[in-house]
Amino acid sequence: MIEQGAQPQRTDVNTLGEFGLIEHLTRRFPLLNASSVVGIGDDAAVIDNGNFKTVVSTDMLLEGIHFDLMYTPLKHLGYKAVVVNLSDIYAMNAQPKQITVSLALSNRFSVEALEELYEGIYAACEHYGVDLVGGDTSSSTKGLVISVTAIGQGETDKLAYRSGAKVGDLICISGNVGAAYLGLQLLEREKQIYLSSPGVSPDLEEEAYCVGRQLKPEARKDIIDLIAKTQLVPTAMIDISDGVASELFHLCRASGVGAFLEESGVPIHPDAQLLALKFKLDPITCALSGGEDYELLFTIDPADIEKVKYLPDIYIAGEITAASEGVKLHTKGGNIHPLKAQGWVHFDPNKG
Amino acid sequence: MIEQGAQPQRTDVNTLGEFGLIEHLTRRFPLLNASSVVGIGDDAAVIDNGNFKTVVSTDMLLEGIHFDLMYTPLKHLGYKAVVVNLSDIYAMNAQPKQITVSLALSNRFSVEALEELYEGIYAACEHYGVDLVGGDTSSSTKGLVISVTAIGQGETDKLAYRSGAKVGDLICISGNVGAAYLGLQLLEREKQIYLSSPGVSPDLEEEAYCVGRQLKPEARKDIIDLIAKTQLVPTAMIDISDGVASELFHLCRASGVGAFLEESGVPIHPDAQLLALKFKLDPITCALSGGEDYELLFTIDPADIEKVKYLPDIYIAGEITAASEGVKLHTKGGNIHPLKAQGWVHFDPNKG
Repeated sequence: MIEQGAQPQRTDVNTLGEFGLIEHLTRRFPLLNASSVVGIGDDAAVIDNGNFKTVVSTDMLLEGIHFDLMYTPLKHLGYKAVVVNLSDIYAMNAQPKQITVSLALSNRFSVEALEELYEGIYAACEHYGVDLVGGDTSSSTKGLVISVTAIGQGETDKLAYRSGAKVGDLICISGNVGAAYLGLQLLEREKQIYLSSPGVSPDLEEEAYCVGRQLKPEARKDIIDLIAKTQLVPTAMIDISDGVASELFHLCRASGVGAFLEESGVPIHPDAQLLALKFKLDPITCALSGGEDYELLFTIDPADIEKVKYLPDIYIAGEITAASEGVKLHTKGGNIHPLKAQGWVHFDPNKG
Repeated sequence: MIEQGAQPQRTDVNTLGEFGLIEHLTRRFPLLNASSVVGIGDDAAVIDNGNFKTVVSTDMLLEGIHFDLMYTPLKHLGYKAVVVNLSDIYAMNAQPKQITVSLALSNRFSVEALEELYEGIYAACEHYGVDLVGGDTSSSTKGLVISVTAIGQGETDKLAYRSGAKVGDLICISGNVGAAYLGLQLLEREKQIYLSSPGVSPDLEEEAYCVGRQLKPEARKDIIDLIAKTQLVPTAMIDISDGVASELFHLCRASGVGAFLEESGVPIHPDAQLLALKFKLDPITCALSGGEDYELLFTIDPADIEKVKYLPDIYIAGEITAASEGVKLHTKGGNIHPLKAQGWVHFDPNKG
């Protein structure tokens, strides 16, 4: 029998972090096929199909890690599992066309529960015009696992990679950020209250906006359609799943540049502002480090400013600088300090 | 909070079975995009890309369900996770080009353990000429989950669907079947012995063939290359992951035909024969209902018989009949009886 624990060296995965880990594990994989244009390291992989490019993205959601069924309706979960992947395809300035959905579930789920989940998957497919073309279903010893792969199409000269930002480019953010994170804080608090006194029914209506951003996010297809209409091609783009700060670092690193981010340019919804204050949290910290907004962070050539200036829901939040400048935040108070990336939730050392 | 258990009706997922469940859940998903040629129900989805077709397949493997790390070296697991998906692409008569790999893991796995897993993924990519182009890594509360998506290319007029078999076509099987199932039985038995007396070291060398078929299966790229060389296009094809019987039923159902299978035509390796007898199991039952062989089951026009007759490792095992004839087995003893499909392992009602 194999002694899995008997390795001479044991490096904890936390020492590398998620992205370090992926890089470490995949660094020696070459791309063998001419059609493999972009591999690991962007929002999606890019495959050359002659007239256009096929864009592929995949995400896995696990119960107890990415979602809590105590406050996540299964229909919303199905919807979100799809949206999260579509967001990666849009972040390449491409259009998703197909998805595959793999499920693993314990026998605690009934057919009716799965029907609810698929209601949500269906609603997302319908809303975004995407086809469910395949998948795999199996049992799990514990909990629900959903793995979605999205496949899209993009025009060769219009794909937006993380690596295209140039010094002087303007940093744009679609929509507001931080609300999804605050919605999650609220749901977690209400869950704790419910667990200690099950009779108390939570009233989340007042916080419908933030809760909605957490439970039913949308991918910004509308932004991709809008910028196509104005013939704008972002120089670089990434979707905001782990927080603005973390994503900006990814983009800067891939492009070999720095950034100067204006706090005043980072849009926060008034409801998120208020909820942050209720939780005694700094709204801008929530906006920069809270995840799951699924907005788009992109850079544009300054010559294109007229194209975005009058578009709804696009905010100019800073400028790309030289790599030597680092990634800096200019606060409303007038201070300039290095931005910190705290987007990723680390592996929980208490779980075995 | 949501009462997930409070649904008015609760249908156990076992009542539908895996395939019934997928059909039930996905029946109302239409295909919206012209490029979506084939959706759910074949080995892989098919996407139209003009000059050729893109073929996509996905599979999820869970610790405790699909593999046991007590006797599965991580390197072999990584290799197998890739091979299982490539097999689905070959079963469309297409060539895999790219894969994505998503992992979820608990902190019990060290970086060194993951390196081993990726060694296997790398070896499979290298052997089959496939590029790793993306993925996703996250933590899990328990165990290891691997989800792989494979993307391939096929020529429009050469893709082999499950649905193309016609009455009179010959049924072919590549390689031998049943050995992977017997290898698993042996590993499970040795695990039990080891658990009750850890001092006893198992000697599996004598059974290297069956154990190898279980732990390090190969996808039949060689067969796909061979039939391309002889300009043979199967009328229908499926890969044997759940056992010959189960796969033949899928193929017959998709094609609207019946089948007459010759027991004497189903190839069994001598080592598998002997091991079956040691376990007091019927070799033909193991061959028909045991899974994970990853051989190809395909049908050919009888006019093409000269093309396969002299090819190595292809066995003619029967004939396609009218649907009204059903799926029948002609035993070596001369009896004819309906074939039973027992391929699928049901959801375990003891796991919650």
